[in-house]
Amino acid sequence: MSFLIDGLQYANWSEKIFRQMREGGVDAVHVTITYHETFRETVLIIEQWNRWFEKHPDLIFQGRTAADVQLARDTGRTAIFFGSQNPSCIEDDIGLVEVMHTLGLRFMQLTYNNQSLLASGCYEDEDTGLTRMGRAVVSEMNRVGMVVDMSHSGERSTLQAIEHSTRPIAVTHANPSSWHMALRNKSDDLLRALGECGGFLGLSTYPHHLDGGSACTLQSWCDMAALAVDLVGPTGVGIGTDLCQDQPDSIVEWMRVGRWTKAIDYGEGSAANAGFPAMPDWFHDNRDLAGLRTGLRAAGLDETTIDGVMGNNWHAFFESSFGAQTARPVTLDRAAE
Amino acid sequence: MSFLIDGLQYANWSEKIFRQMREGGVDAVHVTITYHETFRETVLIIEQWNRWFEKHPDLIFQGRTAADVQLARDTGRTAIFFGSQNPSCIEDDIGLVEVMHTLGLRFMQLTYNNQSLLASGCYEDEDTGLTRMGRAVVSEMNRVGMVVDMSHSGERSTLQAIEHSTRPIAVTHANPSSWHMALRNKSDDLLRALGECGGFLGLSTYPHHLDGGSACTLQSWCDMAALAVDLVGPTGVGIGTDLCQDQPDSIVEWMRVGRWTKAIDYGEGSAANAGFPAMPDWFHDNRDLAGLRTGLRAAGLDETTIDGVMGNNWHAFFESSFGAQTARPVTLDRAAE
Repeated sequence: MSFLIDGLQYANWSEKIFRQMREGGVDAVHVTITYHETFRETVLIIEQWNRWFEKHPDLIFQGRTAADVQLARDTGRTAIFFGSQNPSCIEDDIGLVEVMHTLGLRFMQLTYNNQSLLASGCYEDEDTGLTRMGRAVVSEMNRVGMVVDMSHSGERSTLQAIEHSTRPIAVTHANPSSWHMALRNKSDDLLRALGECGGFLGLSTYPHHLDGGSACTLQSWCDMAALAVDLVGPTGVGIGTDLCQDQPDSIVEWMRVGRWTKAIDYGEGSAANAGFPAMPDWFHDNRDLAGLRTGLRAAGLDETTIDGVMGNNWHAFFESSFGAQTARPVTLDRAAE
Repeated sequence: MSFLIDGLQYANWSEKIFRQMREGGVDAVHVTITYHETFRETVLIIEQWNRWFEKHPDLIFQGRTAADVQLARDTGRTAIFFGSQNPSCIEDDIGLVEVMHTLGLRFMQLTYNNQSLLASGCYEDEDTGLTRMGRAVVSEMNRVGMVVDMSHSGERSTLQAIEHSTRPIAVTHANPSSWHMALRNKSDDLLRALGECGGFLGLSTYPHHLDGGSACTLQSWCDMAALAVDLVGPTGVGIGTDLCQDQPDSIVEWMRVGRWTKAIDYGEGSAANAGFPAMPDWFHDNRDLAGLRTGLRAAGLDETTIDGVMGNNWHAFFESSFGAQTARPVTLDRAAE
């Protein structure tokens, strides 16, 4: 049986949700732990996760390597991998990249909708591409084994990240914009470039990224998955639901507004639809993940590709992404002296 | 050949010193990374260490487990283990104990001369013993595998730490006060209690802790080591030089004064002798460590005990101290429900 991995969730975590992960047979979840929080604020959130890990050792544990996905499977638990949806947690300090990696951060978005110190978000009018610090930080992320995540970045920035990064990058939660036009979805050209670099696309179930929104059908979503496989390649696609289960609407406001404006920014929503949108009826929580398999079959994907999309592809990507780049062998260095 | 381990140094680190560690055949050093620094300031120091690890991978690497001492030996490098000489780095936040352990902190003093949030230092008039937070933090340190270090603590606080801690504690750098009376040295009663709990004493070469100060002879120091073995036991004694190589005198002022007073506190020194004292002529840097063996033989210690003092005892202590306490088996928990 393939691994079952969700490449992006940001729920209002609780024992209920951790138990649903187990009921759903989910081996690993990449969870967002931080958006606009400073380093110290992010550490406070890690402290909260440490309490959950201490309190629920039979349900969850912190994942650090791909081998932890197998460990999760073997011990009937879910491995939790940390990620950030903005680089606020490293502040203006490149040394915090390695510190955050040591604390378990395995994914970091270079931007969240807006311009950051590193690159441009997908809501900016002008896309600077990677900044000077952006190039330095991508290289440092490559060195320590932290995945560059461009889910909320502009197209130019994303293409430059693909080019500058020496390791494959990811878009952990988005869909092709040729299926549903949205600032957060990605063009066919971008997705092809992503696939050519060995990069990864996690498919979102967040209604603003879906054709038909909350009314999107499972089959439409699975047909979109087949399209994504065509664009990115059969080993570069997985699930990245963007599940924001049980979150109050104050959280979507924090995600969108942080501390960068005193006004309200509705992001993908609107004044009339400011809160979290209703999820499609075929995906509400972790117990619904395994059910995506049926739709993927109906979309005509072969079993190996389906196993890949359900989790084996993320597992392989974790395997090649989370370790430090091997230093040049010391003996060779010495011989060259 | 036994391991060669120094249980406490706080040098003005440089490539020169790292090379001296290798010339001296030192397998592991417990280095002080922080005194009065806040959490964020301590992280900045860890960032500096990360740069040294990146720049000198053929000389040093970060040690996290006892197995890293063997790895150091096998690869001809020195494993660097982090410690703190005050609990400032965890601020008032018990959650930072696990965070600091994840970042590699393996020793933490509950106090540095003064009262802290956790206990009393050896320079206070009144010794509170462990505070409420002190008891909570010792339990948390026990849980995650961080050694309680009472080198700069008062006697009552130290005895209470021995009693409250469920794992053996350490005095990483001090000597018996029956050999040389000093506020920083430890009474025979305390050292016997330390030995009875399986605890550890690292022997200091810092002149203020030495009989005769800078003029202390190697043989006097080694005879003191034999006394320490009698008091603590043959497996509970090691080296903890307190080497402060190449430090400017501004550093000893920071160690003594931090930000807690606007006046000057001379600590173990005096107005006439405010700076770092001259080291004894038989110990200046890491290349002198192995030479202590000769003096220990002349002091009448047997070869197994000498191997223990030189490093095997610290190695065994690392082995039992740095891992997380095993959680109760999940299956047993379930059976009990």
